Amino acid sequence: MNRIRVAIVGGSGYTGAELLRLLVSHPEVELVAVTSRAEAGRLVADEYVHLRGYSELRFSAPDSAVLGSCDAVFYATPHGAAMDSAPEVLEAGARVIDLSADFRLRDAQLWAQWYDREHAAPDLLDSAIYGLPEINREAIRGARLVACPGCYPTAVQLSLAPVLRAGMIRLEGIIADCKSGVSGAGRVAKKPLLLAEASDNFHAYASSGHRHLPEIEQGLGAIAGAPVELSFVPHLLPIIRGIHATVYAELTDSAEAAALYADFYRDEPFVDVMSAGSHPETRSVRGSNMARLAVQQLGRRLIILTVIDNLVKGASGQAVQCMNLMFGLAETSGLQAPALLP
Amino acid sequence: MNRIRVAIVGGSGYTGAELLRLLVSHPEVELVAVTSRAEAGRLVADEYVHLRGYSELRFSAPDSAVLGSCDAVFYATPHGAAMDSAPEVLEAGARVIDLSADFRLRDAQLWAQWYDREHAAPDLLDSAIYGLPEINREAIRGARLVACPGCYPTAVQLSLAPVLRAGMIRLEGIIADCKSGVSGAGRVAKKPLLLAEASDNFHAYASSGHRHLPEIEQGLGAIAGAPVELSFVPHLLPIIRGIHATVYAELTDSAEAAALYADFYRDEPFVDVMSAGSHPETRSVRGSNMARLAVQQLGRRLIILTVIDNLVKGASGQAVQCMNLMFGLAETSGLQAPALLP
Amino acid sequence: MNRIRVAIVGGSGYTGAELLRLLVSHPEVELVAVTSRAEAGRLVADEYVHLRGYSELRFSAPDSAVLGSCDAVFYATPHGAAMDSAPEVLEAGARVIDLSADFRLRDAQLWAQWYDREHAAPDLLDSAIYGLPEINREAIRGARLVACPGCYPTAVQLSLAPVLRAGMIRLEGIIADCKSGVSGAGRVAKKPLLLAEASDNFHAYASSGHRHLPEIEQGLGAIAGAPVELSFVPHLLPIIRGIHATVYAELTDSAEAAALYADFYRDEPFVDVMSAGSHPETRSVRGSNMARLAVQQLGRRLIILTVIDNLVKGASGQAVQCMNLMFGLAETSGLQAPALLP
Amino acid sequence: MNRIRVAIVGGSGYTGAELLRLLVSHPEVELVAVTSRAEAGRLVADEYVHLRGYSELRFSAPDSAVLGSCDAVFYATPHGAAMDSAPEVLEAGARVIDLSADFRLRDAQLWAQWYDREHAAPDLLDSAIYGLPEINREAIRGARLVACPGCYPTAVQLSLAPVLRAGMIRLEGIIADCKSGVSGAGRVAKKPLLLAEASDNFHAYASSGHRHLPEIEQGLGAIAGAPVELSFVPHLLPIIRGIHATVYAELTDSAEAAALYADFYRDEPFVDVMSAGSHPETRSVRGSNMARLAVQQLGRRLIILTVIDNLVKGASGQAVQCMNLMFGLAETSGLQAPALLP
Repeated sequence: MNRIRVAIVGGSGYTGAELLRLLVSHPEVELVAVTSRAEAGRLVADEYVHLRGYSELRFSAPDSAVLGSCDAVFYATPHGAAMDSAPEVLEAGARVIDLSADFRLRDAQLWAQWYDREHAAPDLLDSAIYGLPEINREAIRGARLVACPGCYPTAVQLSLAPVLRAGMIRLEGIIADCKSGVSGAGRVAKKPLLLAEASDNFHAYASSGHRHLPEIEQGLGAIAGAPVELSFVPHLLPIIRGIHATVYAELTDSAEAAALYADFYRDEPFVDVMSAGSHPETRSVRGSNMARLAVQQLGRRLIILTVIDNLVKGASGQAVQCMNLMFGLAETSGLQAPALLP
Repeated sequence: MNRIRVAIVGGSGYTGAELLRLLVSHPEVELVAVTSRAEAGRLVADEYVHLRGYSELRFSAPDSAVLGSCDAVFYATPHGAAMDSAPEVLEAGARVIDLSADFRLRDAQLWAQWYDREHAAPDLLDSAIYGLPEINREAIRGARLVACPGCYPTAVQLSLAPVLRAGMIRLEGIIADCKSGVSGAGRVAKKPLLLAEASDNFHAYASSGHRHLPEIEQGLGAIAGAPVELSFVPHLLPIIRGIHATVYAELTDSAEAAALYADFYRDEPFVDVMSAGSHPETRSVRGSNMARLAVQQLGRRLIILTVIDNLVKGASGQAVQCMNLMFGLAETSGLQAPALLP
Repeated sequence: MNRIRVAIVGGSGYTGAELLRLLVSHPEVELVAVTSRAEAGRLVADEYVHLRGYSELRFSAPDSAVLGSCDAVFYATPHGAAMDSAPEVLEAGARVIDLSADFRLRDAQLWAQWYDREHAAPDLLDSAIYGLPEINREAIRGARLVACPGCYPTAVQLSLAPVLRAGMIRLEGIIADCKSGVSGAGRVAKKPLLLAEASDNFHAYASSGHRHLPEIEQGLGAIAGAPVELSFVPHLLPIIRGIHATVYAELTDSAEAAALYADFYRDEPFVDVMSAGSHPETRSVRGSNMARLAVQQLGRRLIILTVIDNLVKGASGQAVQCMNLMFGLAETSGLQAPALLP
Repeated sequence: MNRIRVAIVGGSGYTGAELLRLLVSHPEVELVAVTSRAEAGRLVADEYVHLRGYSELRFSAPDSAVLGSCDAVFYATPHGAAMDSAPEVLEAGARVIDLSADFRLRDAQLWAQWYDREHAAPDLLDSAIYGLPEINREAIRGARLVACPGCYPTAVQLSLAPVLRAGMIRLEGIIADCKSGVSGAGRVAKKPLLLAEASDNFHAYASSGHRHLPEIEQGLGAIAGAPVELSFVPHLLPIIRGIHATVYAELTDSAEAAALYADFYRDEPFVDVMSAGSHPETRSVRGSNMARLAVQQLGRRLIILTVIDNLVKGASGQAVQCMNLMFGLAETSGLQAPALLP
């Protein structure tokens, strides 16, 4: 079989770098182009030294003709770029997997409110498929445009999907206390992300409202079939990779939740339900596409502890998982390496 | 005035080391003895190189006569040691400041249940004063035996005291999602605390019930004047010092909570209320006795973010603050250095 | 072709864990046994959560019959274990790859002097092949007993081999200032390795003589064909994985060294010579079997900067590389993943 | 006695922040102004949250009249600023303590070569006193303009001064392998200093020539009374504060160096000579003005291990030590706190 011809738009950030790491080892992918206006002409392996010997590609300026001629185009760009470029690329016949926020919200008004500009391609929102395979696998298989979930939304939705689907928890008063490693903030030179500022330190941020909140509410609402009200407080962890979601919910009766989780995720290749009362560690998924979770039930109080690597299951790995589904490959292709521990 | 003659029982752990750091610089203290059975005879400054030039003391084996002759004896021991030794020391006339868990719970049965042994000095529990100055200042002044609060209980009680006193929140469904640096686990050689295991990593622990839970519930109940029901999940942060408590509560009406906090802590030397919506950082209190907090109110949902240095305001600094009160010194004596940042 | 049947003796340390990580993904290996007296009966994946789903093996007590029936037996034990057990296993027909220090030194007297006990299998020292493929590839192919180099010795020998072989440097006054991540100290609960002690900290150790020194001198001497005199100071880095060797030597004339390095390592799959004046980063080899180096020449002063992952090229990856050679597999089999960065 | 009236020019970087931390607690200093063009008008304690409650000052734009009216003006600016502004301030009668590189080199040509611009105040170079009290104490007492040493030069000169003065080592082939925490690179938003890039990582930099090299050579030459030839390789440590210098030299005969160090620094309040063979840790001086060193002698090979806090003894603490000398205060005033450990 021919390899899938793939391009990455926006290769100079962390999600772009992680796509590169995953795709240079993917047995069924041919990497055709990696774009970066700032780095155009430079060898990818000069920027990403760990890829020396793995790729001879050079960054190129984005070129619609090249992109359109690919089988799949990943957008690893800041929000606002994919919605400008993707329509033309889709038109030319490529399928699009967007890792940015552009196509995650179904409501263009809501998008405009959180991202401070008009949406440039509102017509595409209806056909964009939300790329959370555990919830949306069949739709992803047939998708031409996939909107990959944000890292926090992935962790929170996987935490709650089983009990929401089963109607076992109250839909109000849910709390998602989330902690993310600094790579989640992107590869941008900002003072608060310096090692001298962020290491040996911990704090919350965006407690008045993070851009992932409407996405989480939309996703949970879709799973529950009814609006869900939650408090979401993100915190910055002094680690490179990893998200830990600590989610608190109230059960509507005294049923056992643990078995439900085991059932719900039994056949999932990338969700590992640990025994109830376990405490998953972020390092146990470092560099891997696995989400690992455990529940703790105390009477009617349910606590779900979920870890993912924000750059893999929270971004680039999930995007590759979606690609595998879209092109009929084994869902785990290119994603089989265990986490790097210690 | 004569200096206060002080001994530290259990000088080889982190809270003992931190007492040493604070007391060698305290202008009104003479350090008479630091005990450690394991290190007896060794220069304190050989174990704690940062104290070379600050103290010529040697660790000694605990000796009741020496301890009883002091003005104040700090216990920086694992639980179980102070309750065996303190009665004799108190009898001899010294005042006792216990940093361990031995005298924190008022109920000997409850203590036995959480610490898996009988309490050795139940008669003293009634007279032990809980050493949280912001709640209990006057009682501490006259105390002969002070039970210093645990690190998590300090952070959680300071987070909730204003609204509990004012009767502004529901007493059920409170959540304290807490994160602690590794020094909180003590200076003990355990694999999960190794840098190779705990760095670049994050996880919850003891989600089924941490020993600080009954202390927190006792303290919150005393403040509220009624039983308080809370979920408490501690997490291990890959930092050395610092606790961050993220506390979620529901207001009973739509009153503004922020002003209440500013009022409640207006004259406190060691509680800094930041403007509502701020995000306090653990590093802003690193090495300092300050607690720093901010509230975030979203409708009736109240979120309180509180940081302390677990070894200072969460242990040794608070113990010195209590000593200052007990001996009529300025409450801030020896505790005035700003945090070390960056 | 049949898979190679492999056992790991001593699976509960970091090099054992890393062998597991590499071998569960190795396409031509069947993992038959992982021994650990302390953990016997326990699921490997319960100890190493990142391997959940990758292996159903349980730790077992070492059993000579099982080990002897394997094609290859890796020893990932503290020094002293392999020399007791390997003779019988070799006798039974298995090939042995020892990651410990037992067979690295050719001189049993020297071994006894550095390891404070008699060598238990001095007869095997002559036939033990030093497992540094870049120096010893052909001998490794035919070996029945391979002594894998230590982590520091790997980094230092790769740093100096080209100029030593070419006779371009003075053999006295060489300095190897080396820095290692904490995983190099093993998975042992020692206070100085705690995150609260070792993070935000840096220091030298063993400056009077580290056990790797005689191995380095033996290796360099063999490459040079004459005794080499060097100063070796190791330092403890507050990182998990990685060794950085900064090696200083004096050229005997003003020839250019850079081209020599490029030539010497041109066909090596696991040595990447960067352009002169580059500064290799430890993270660029994190989790990978690559050694990456660059030279800096200032007149006759030569500085070589070399990085490896101490657990991979410095231990378990190199051991797998040796196994690949011994069994006629592609040298890179199972070792092809790029480093994990960021 | 009246307090010394002090201004800080350039208060928004790490050395400025550290001056603030030290000076708000200094018993004989009144802080009059802290300048920062970028932050003018903003409360200092809004930028540096750890100083809330310690200072009511606001950043101001630099104003020569204000600066000139002070007793002492500290420049904590990037190179190039002090040489433009200091002449006028000196003229007005204030004394100047420059933490930047502007007045460190005595040779304006050499300065121009390393800093890529002409020196703006070459006439002042002769009267600028190099602010290393252990070498230059008497001259500092009478100085009007002090050029504080760089962090690396402080560590390397303290490492070598005793044996250079005594003429005990060869003046060629000296090696200074130095490692610095990231705060040494300043509070500037650069990608390589991000936690996601710099943590769990280690590498050398500027191996072809760092700007501190000519300063080190000038200083060592002045101490030795003859030119000194050294190799200097700095490395970036994933810690916030701390420099570790590992210095290698060759003794000219077999004399014992250890006693010489103890003698040379016997009366120094801020140099702690540990017993020979010790391994000083950077954390043992974290936040303190102490330099701590130990020697290791192996035959004629001498290894000196020296640690300082780059922001204290390597910058702001040393500047305060100089101020104390210039104004006849106790040399240790405001600098007496022990290091923060753990």
